[in-house]
Amino acid sequence: MRTRFILIETSHAGNVGSVARAMKVMGFDDLVLVRPRWADVLQREEALALASGADDVLARARIVPTLDEALDGVSHVCATAMTPRDFGPPTVAPRAHLAELAARLLSPAAASLGVTAADPAGQADGVAPTASVSAVPTGVAFLFGSERYGMKNEDVYRSHACLCIPTAPDYGSLNLAAAVQLIAYEWRQALGGFALPASGAPQPRAADAQAVAGLLAHWEQALVAVGFLDPAAPRKLLPRLNQLCNRAEPTEEEIHILRGVARAMLQTAAQARR
Amino acid sequence: MRTRFILIETSHAGNVGSVARAMKVMGFDDLVLVRPRWADVLQREEALALASGADDVLARARIVPTLDEALDGVSHVCATAMTPRDFGPPTVAPRAHLAELAARLLSPAAASLGVTAADPAGQADGVAPTASVSAVPTGVAFLFGSERYGMKNEDVYRSHACLCIPTAPDYGSLNLAAAVQLIAYEWRQALGGFALPASGAPQPRAADAQAVAGLLAHWEQALVAVGFLDPAAPRKLLPRLNQLCNRAEPTEEEIHILRGVARAMLQTAAQARR
Repeated sequence: MRTRFILIETSHAGNVGSVARAMKVMGFDDLVLVRPRWADVLQREEALALASGADDVLARARIVPTLDEALDGVSHVCATAMTPRDFGPPTVAPRAHLAELAARLLSPAAASLGVTAADPAGQADGVAPTASVSAVPTGVAFLFGSERYGMKNEDVYRSHACLCIPTAPDYGSLNLAAAVQLIAYEWRQALGGFALPASGAPQPRAADAQAVAGLLAHWEQALVAVGFLDPAAPRKLLPRLNQLCNRAEPTEEEIHILRGVARAMLQTAAQARR
Repeated sequence: MRTRFILIETSHAGNVGSVARAMKVMGFDDLVLVRPRWADVLQREEALALASGADDVLARARIVPTLDEALDGVSHVCATAMTPRDFGPPTVAPRAHLAELAARLLSPAAASLGVTAADPAGQADGVAPTASVSAVPTGVAFLFGSERYGMKNEDVYRSHACLCIPTAPDYGSLNLAAAVQLIAYEWRQALGGFALPASGAPQPRAADAQAVAGLLAHWEQALVAVGFLDPAAPRKLLPRLNQLCNRAEPTEEEIHILRGVARAMLQTAAQARR
């Protein structure tokens, strides 16, 4: 499955670099620029500086004169725009739309049939059409308009969906690379996401409730010994500490630490009484 | 519910501006800087340029010398880091953790009890502890370390959770403002999200299957008339076109357009036969 990011008439070289970085961090590397302001944008200093290690994405990026030339091998085209266009595709939230697209893509039917949306229609042989209602997308492209004007109507009309990132009603001014970052993240999440780095430390075991009760009994003695708890007027201190412990869900190691504190309090109190 | 973004030892003024923009676009405006490289960072040209209309966020931002001073009114602290720290809080994916946090926050119990996590513990009066196991957070802070070194261990230890944005295994280099953008977006989504802008055009009605059948019958005549369809060897053309129509889910208006095309083909064929 091809995932392509297409920037149309981008003005700032720095944004192109930031876009490359935003893509790579989410595991995408297919970048096409349509009529960028600078013909040498992929080699410009600001682009390389902001790519910050994603210069391989810049190195393999293509520059083309028309959107048509950017769309080879792509069957599903997502415009991005803040304002819906009459006669354009439906305006949809990225999360919902990309989840649906990924579900079509990752369905067992898609994998086993090997259906491609690029199958030539029309005067082919007499094979019956497949049973699937939705064609399986072969590639998806995300289109981003220029920093100043956004997407042109004619480019939105080309698209199957118009993704609109939900923003504050009074301030929808998303930076181009920020928009690419959010879409790349949502698409990666829809495709199953990346794993979190594993912690080197072993997963701590929560102490059982019996261990917590033992801890509290130990602390009760210690708090009496240091004069904080008056057994004649306990003021619900132990139930409070019990709730605090329950919320904290201490590990076995932490129980040991806290019992060590109680032990030290008791020893100190014994010394003070001598 | 307070939402605060805290940048610790940030080097680049431009990043501070981009962060303000990333926050505002998701409806957040509480920004605190701890020991930024530049004391005048909130007034610097790059910050204002990249804030791009979010200069009100910069104008009300605070600069403080310690993380402690940045955390007033915040009961739940989320570090952000790419690498888990031993003895630190659990490393969690933003989407799952923020959904859980929002659920606690938006629960009817939270709203009606008015419980605050800032209730002083200890020697208070004899009121029994509340029945809820989880305290309701009064404010959440998201911490972001410096561009070069990320977060210090001691600041991660202060936190309740360590958010890790899942990135490509071989390239996890998220730009600071991009990370803020993703976290701000996920938190806004967890809080219920913003609405998409409404389209001005009325929602088109899908044509019913009877109308599609009428269209196909009309096109069948037209395709025979222009010599594309041989009734003696139809090659499953009509079932194919039917499936194409079904996937396209035409509106009533589109059926009218396509019947107009069939009518024009039939008229042209009639003229050609004269």
